[in-house]
Amino acid sequence: MYDINKIRNDFPILSREVNGKPLTYLDNGASAQKPQVVIDAITRGYAEEYSNVHRGLHYLSNLSTERYEAVRAIVQKFLNAKHEDEIIFNSGTTEGINMVSYSWAAPRMQAGDEIILSTMEHHANIVPWHFLRERLGVVLKWVDPELDGSLDPQKVLDTITDKTRLIAITQCSNVLGTVVDVKAICEGARNKGVPVLVDGSQGAVHMPVDVQDIGCDFYVITGHKLYGPSASGAIYVHRERAAEMQPFMGGGDMIDEVSKETVTYAGMPLKFEAGTPGIVQTIGLGAALEYLMELGMENVAAHEADLAAYAQERLSGLNWVNVQGSAPGKAAIFSLTMDGAAHAHDMSTILDKKGIAIRAGHHCAKPLMEHLGVAATARASFGLYNTRDEVDTLIDGLELCHKLLA
Amino acid sequence: MYDINKIRNDFPILSREVNGKPLTYLDNGASAQKPQVVIDAITRGYAEEYSNVHRGLHYLSNLSTERYEAVRAIVQKFLNAKHEDEIIFNSGTTEGINMVSYSWAAPRMQAGDEIILSTMEHHANIVPWHFLRERLGVVLKWVDPELDGSLDPQKVLDTITDKTRLIAITQCSNVLGTVVDVKAICEGARNKGVPVLVDGSQGAVHMPVDVQDIGCDFYVITGHKLYGPSASGAIYVHRERAAEMQPFMGGGDMIDEVSKETVTYAGMPLKFEAGTPGIVQTIGLGAALEYLMELGMENVAAHEADLAAYAQERLSGLNWVNVQGSAPGKAAIFSLTMDGAAHAHDMSTILDKKGIAIRAGHHCAKPLMEHLGVAATARASFGLYNTRDEVDTLIDGLELCHKLLA
Repeated sequence: MYDINKIRNDFPILSREVNGKPLTYLDNGASAQKPQVVIDAITRGYAEEYSNVHRGLHYLSNLSTERYEAVRAIVQKFLNAKHEDEIIFNSGTTEGINMVSYSWAAPRMQAGDEIILSTMEHHANIVPWHFLRERLGVVLKWVDPELDGSLDPQKVLDTITDKTRLIAITQCSNVLGTVVDVKAICEGARNKGVPVLVDGSQGAVHMPVDVQDIGCDFYVITGHKLYGPSASGAIYVHRERAAEMQPFMGGGDMIDEVSKETVTYAGMPLKFEAGTPGIVQTIGLGAALEYLMELGMENVAAHEADLAAYAQERLSGLNWVNVQGSAPGKAAIFSLTMDGAAHAHDMSTILDKKGIAIRAGHHCAKPLMEHLGVAATARASFGLYNTRDEVDTLIDGLELCHKLLA
Repeated sequence: MYDINKIRNDFPILSREVNGKPLTYLDNGASAQKPQVVIDAITRGYAEEYSNVHRGLHYLSNLSTERYEAVRAIVQKFLNAKHEDEIIFNSGTTEGINMVSYSWAAPRMQAGDEIILSTMEHHANIVPWHFLRERLGVVLKWVDPELDGSLDPQKVLDTITDKTRLIAITQCSNVLGTVVDVKAICEGARNKGVPVLVDGSQGAVHMPVDVQDIGCDFYVITGHKLYGPSASGAIYVHRERAAEMQPFMGGGDMIDEVSKETVTYAGMPLKFEAGTPGIVQTIGLGAALEYLMELGMENVAAHEADLAAYAQERLSGLNWVNVQGSAPGKAAIFSLTMDGAAHAHDMSTILDKKGIAIRAGHHCAKPLMEHLGVAATARASFGLYNTRDEVDTLIDGLELCHKLLA
């Protein structure tokens, strides 16, 4: 039983007001709010149990190491990774994808090699590959979505040539809400010997994830969108790919031996976790993922599917509003534009006066914006704590926008 | 007036017990504890004011952006940087030095080019340069400390050749406590056209820092050692060096334009802050630095100098204990070994039973350990909240070690 009132009470910020109105937080695509269990884990981490981790022998060091390392099994379970050492902690998706670019891709790619991306990718899954284009002459091949925002897996697979070295693709568009059949892409790519990186920044937030079932080589998540602390995160790296990777950042904890002449490296996963890690953030991420698993990601997905259906229905009643993307099974992410000269930023400003937080802009997806032919959209993105009432509040707010801007 | 009792009360963890004894926390070199103002800033950040930063237009996004960006001026003031845009936020020293290695050093170095390091460097200021040795054929040149642990700036400058491209040096050894005259090194290096990176991981914790007075090109700090959150930090990059740097990580926020064909980048400092940053950690770092500046770093330094003198005096009374490093003006960091077979790890374990947290091991400084001819030391590192009474507690604990291990 998904008790939405109880769930909302778990998030202290949801009871605050903004501009004299109850907060209607619909900016979850940018970042999600945190339940009290996460805030408590952080507070306890600093106020009662703090120390640096690893190699310490005193009580607090052992305690914080234990709390920190326990999160690896939590992430493993959340993603259903086969091995715990396939989980590397980091600060989120951006660092995760950059690590793959520097550690795995750059050393094995040369001019003319190809990377396949969808036009729906977030800049975090574009710019690291542009680096390889700029620096090595790698070629980026783009697959456009269909008119309804869906992405045909076969079109991705048909783009593979004998020069393709990687497919890097989102599981869920942060603009359109499109859910991509990454399993089909991974299966087809594996048959052609092409590794796949799945950007799970949005996907892991909205649906159960099973990296073994998906069959991907890399899967990145970002903690702050998963109701966890800012700058927390992890990447799943299949053992076969991990064995091919050179270190990304150098420093403490990732070494085996260091002398003046040479250096040797630790094994997985420490090899890719240089320096004092985000100790308390990672402990907070563990609390967030446990919270999600207790709710059940299939229950979160069902709740959000209901919200998505209801929002779609209500939005379709506003014939001066355009919703970008209507792919079947899309997540509860709605990028809106209004007929006429109304700018997304103006919509956001008006909604804010009603306590409604949405995001206006290009959503770090400029190639998609160009493809859609819009400069910006007003995006309402729902999370596990949102309600049908909040959909109604949004619709009321949009009607006010129409009145003021049309 | 430096009110040590009031200060200790600011740190909630200091009132806890460990193994039935009051906690004597002497592991500050690894990481420092957090004052309540930092914990409160984090809690408020998540429970009342959380949103993603930049480009949002709603109330919470503006509020968190304001709180987050305000920290830049705080770091600027703490380091006395000339320009606010010379401050780049990151997760700490390790990321900071790796950024310099990838963004500034790698693109401009080739086989045979030389980097000068001291033998006292932490692995964070060694391994990124070993990467350049492994990958580009760069040559690492090492400057050993004197017998007392001091480092002769002239020896560093005499190591410069026409192949020297960088000097990367600590301001304060995390093992010996040696304070390095980085200003003299920067002045001499500048006359020869060689940029200097100063590792301020320990230095900034123990003394006032003025990067303009030092005259360095890069200065890295790490928040968790500065009484701030884990995985918070910043790097000062002189504008001239910043102009020479290519982006490190790619993603949101660091771009100007992104299309399928090309990408252009934002200006300083955002160019080097890809993706959603450590929003709440950075706000917490700001609270920590404000706390330190309110105490006054010169007062912190004076308090710790008193502790260092007292500890040195008391330790000199134990003729079976060897203190590594006795450079004049050394920081309150004492790496100890005992005569006979007593291992540093055993010392740590015995001290822990008395509630005393120290660190045993190589302290991520293996080349220095090799130079000293020891495998490990037991390191007691003091912070702003430690007391003479805690020095006495340490001495009592060491006497117990002697009794049990000798």
